[in-house]
Amino acid sequence: MQPSNLQKWSAELIGTFWLTFGGCGSAVLAAAFPNVGIGLLGVSLAFGLTVLTGAYAFGPISGGHFNPAVSVGLAVGGRFRWAELPGYVIAQTVGALLAGFVLYQIATGKPGAEVGGFATNGFGAHSPGGFGMTAAIWTEVVLTAVFLLVILGATARRAAAGFGGLAIGLALTLIHLISIPVTNTSVNPARSTGVAVFGPAIAIEQLWFFWLMPIVGAAIGALIYKALLAGGED
Amino acid sequence: MQPSNLQKWSAELIGTFWLTFGGCGSAVLAAAFPNVGIGLLGVSLAFGLTVLTGAYAFGPISGGHFNPAVSVGLAVGGRFRWAELPGYVIAQTVGALLAGFVLYQIATGKPGAEVGGFATNGFGAHSPGGFGMTAAIWTEVVLTAVFLLVILGATARRAAAGFGGLAIGLALTLIHLISIPVTNTSVNPARSTGVAVFGPAIAIEQLWFFWLMPIVGAAIGALIYKALLAGGED
Amino acid sequence: MQPSNLQKWSAELIGTFWLTFGGCGSAVLAAAFPNVGIGLLGVSLAFGLTVLTGAYAFGPISGGHFNPAVSVGLAVGGRFRWAELPGYVIAQTVGALLAGFVLYQIATGKPGAEVGGFATNGFGAHSPGGFGMTAAIWTEVVLTAVFLLVILGATARRAAAGFGGLAIGLALTLIHLISIPVTNTSVNPARSTGVAVFGPAIAIEQLWFFWLMPIVGAAIGALIYKALLAGGED
Amino acid sequence: MQPSNLQKWSAELIGTFWLTFGGCGSAVLAAAFPNVGIGLLGVSLAFGLTVLTGAYAFGPISGGHFNPAVSVGLAVGGRFRWAELPGYVIAQTVGALLAGFVLYQIATGKPGAEVGGFATNGFGAHSPGGFGMTAAIWTEVVLTAVFLLVILGATARRAAAGFGGLAIGLALTLIHLISIPVTNTSVNPARSTGVAVFGPAIAIEQLWFFWLMPIVGAAIGALIYKALLAGGED
Repeated sequence: MQPSNLQKWSAELIGTFWLTFGGCGSAVLAAAFPNVGIGLLGVSLAFGLTVLTGAYAFGPISGGHFNPAVSVGLAVGGRFRWAELPGYVIAQTVGALLAGFVLYQIATGKPGAEVGGFATNGFGAHSPGGFGMTAAIWTEVVLTAVFLLVILGATARRAAAGFGGLAIGLALTLIHLISIPVTNTSVNPARSTGVAVFGPAIAIEQLWFFWLMPIVGAAIGALIYKALLAGGED
Repeated sequence: MQPSNLQKWSAELIGTFWLTFGGCGSAVLAAAFPNVGIGLLGVSLAFGLTVLTGAYAFGPISGGHFNPAVSVGLAVGGRFRWAELPGYVIAQTVGALLAGFVLYQIATGKPGAEVGGFATNGFGAHSPGGFGMTAAIWTEVVLTAVFLLVILGATARRAAAGFGGLAIGLALTLIHLISIPVTNTSVNPARSTGVAVFGPAIAIEQLWFFWLMPIVGAAIGALIYKALLAGGED
Repeated sequence: MQPSNLQKWSAELIGTFWLTFGGCGSAVLAAAFPNVGIGLLGVSLAFGLTVLTGAYAFGPISGGHFNPAVSVGLAVGGRFRWAELPGYVIAQTVGALLAGFVLYQIATGKPGAEVGGFATNGFGAHSPGGFGMTAAIWTEVVLTAVFLLVILGATARRAAAGFGGLAIGLALTLIHLISIPVTNTSVNPARSTGVAVFGPAIAIEQLWFFWLMPIVGAAIGALIYKALLAGGED
Repeated sequence: MQPSNLQKWSAELIGTFWLTFGGCGSAVLAAAFPNVGIGLLGVSLAFGLTVLTGAYAFGPISGGHFNPAVSVGLAVGGRFRWAELPGYVIAQTVGALLAGFVLYQIATGKPGAEVGGFATNGFGAHSPGGFGMTAAIWTEVVLTAVFLLVILGATARRAAAGFGGLAIGLALTLIHLISIPVTNTSVNPARSTGVAVFGPAIAIEQLWFFWLMPIVGAAIGALIYKALLAGGED
């Protein structure tokens, strides 16, 4: 029995909630905890584990995108129907906004709480390490492109069955290990949106960038895959 | 040959011993070790690895719950018989108490030892980061709910065979990466009980909270799963 | 074609070399590197990854013990022939000594080098955190016992095929996350021996303890497994 | 349908780009980020995850070498045709140089940026921990040798299907956990070359060392494997 649309949208909503709540939650609540904080390494691991766990739990229902750029890239790559894109993107964005809302309730739930950057993405004045827009473009485009190359390769018919969720989740960990200092790492427009609404004004002003660049990168990755790597058995 | 009740109870007792001894042991003994301590990231990894290793070693015998809230959630979700619940919960609680006992012997086994919070859970005055009861309710309920969603999804018939233990163990790591600063992370009443008995008085006073909230969250997660994600092949 | 004795001994020698060189090497060379050192978390991960990688690479040849206590425990548990024990233990000890030798060449290969504790195990005056002998007994016996329970469970016939190396390797990471502050974590007499020979005198004086306790713990774990968990299909 | 040469070279180019960009990128951008930097542990994890993810995504196309020393070792071990070696090594080196180029664009993309060592490899005056050439020889030769032993063992016919990418990727993490302080860890001539071109002059002067030693180590590992471990079913 094929999953219904309601089941697919539920899976994408819950999975993107988990990605945003888990990844951004670890950043907001635990990254800089005094003396024993988890740091950028812990945040990178958290983001990856949201996708790894979501892929095994919800992937069999919806494919486990949890990311509008991934959905676009899979459509470009011929693995996902364009007609399904709007429903998926809406479900992902709603899930991410719910995550931002719940995280905001928790983060403000102590005396004298300040949410600070609230794990939002940015460049220039809003880059964690002060990196400019050009560096941010290179970072978001290249990393999302390789992310799609990994996703398409690790879920191809010739790939080892079952290991896709492991490889894709840990690819997101790796992407964060590289690029949190540059843009706080998006590669996912829904994740960026979910926290930007509750974060500082500059995050909303720069939000267009984190829809455009990951989607451009995902499309480039999918095109490279089709041109250079896809096989007859793909 | 089906495992006997004694085998199941033994597996749950040993597995919950391992969860509590490993997770809380890493927190008490190694988290804040001078200069090279493992921090909250190491503790998060330890908790997850107790479940990952226990799931592969003892899961084939008992199902690998190691947590009364998980047993309740699986019963709500129709994957576990209610009649088996009391035996499981008793075995889990006894295992956790044994772990607290052994850990106490080790932690006090050096000159001038102080056990401090002894890895107990709490909110308000007993929250590691000073978070209040409302933030703690959001945290424990939402995280246990998603934990059950991951468990039910990753062990469904349509899920990739064998990867459940990996996904579920690492989900517990992720949960700790987010929430140690809020409640010291329970999502597991047995784990909370096992150390509370040997910890400060406030841990016992707040123990009801860490039975109630994880169980409520687990039930909510199971109901969401049944309503929105469960399929015919589930 | 069954592996020959020479192949089995080679696999155990190389695997125990890898365990001792990788685990102790990370501790000696990288744990306390200024500012960016890997800490006890990195050392714990390193020990686990030696076994995880060795299990997949050399396990199909020799069973992947890399540890005299594991060999004894498997013999007690009926999974390994007593007649093979001497050959395995000798190969393991030689591999560990070779690792200590190579590590010593590297660690002393810079101006003003001091090897310090050289990752040796100890209790009392030689415990990293000042823990006494009683705490050390609890630690080494209980952790080796659970290690054997995990090994026996995760490689039983009913267990998920292929995941044993993952579970067993990460169990060793978990064991280190808990117990480095107590004894510097042995649970493996060969690993203790390999570095003790090149370390401070007190490490040799206490070496008997790290043969006795892990082997006692391994035997206890195997007996518990047989009494409470082993099934007909085991 | 077998992959074409163009597909194989593309897979090796992209995979080695990913290895060099991800591993060196995490080192240059995130390792020493103030307060929450990922440290050598994060860099070690990043290098391993480049290979783990690349192995599952691109391994089915090209075998997933991403490293000239690995290609040589596999040829010595009889698992790779010598005639294919030149194409692979060229693709790997081009991919690594592209990675160095992109990383340079990002790393210099902020006011007052300095690239410093740019994650280049070295010994003596260019060793992160001041280790001399002899220590560097031991390190690079032994670690590349064991790397090949793990690769050959974990991809042998008797090995658990599908787990090779996990074991090999995490072996590279382990190698970095041990040896970043000694040589900044090469075991891969292409990775060394990709950043040396954009780094300090001493990195180019010492580059011969990081072609010679990993290749010698890989050949030794492959010969040990053939002599002592290879079986009829290999």
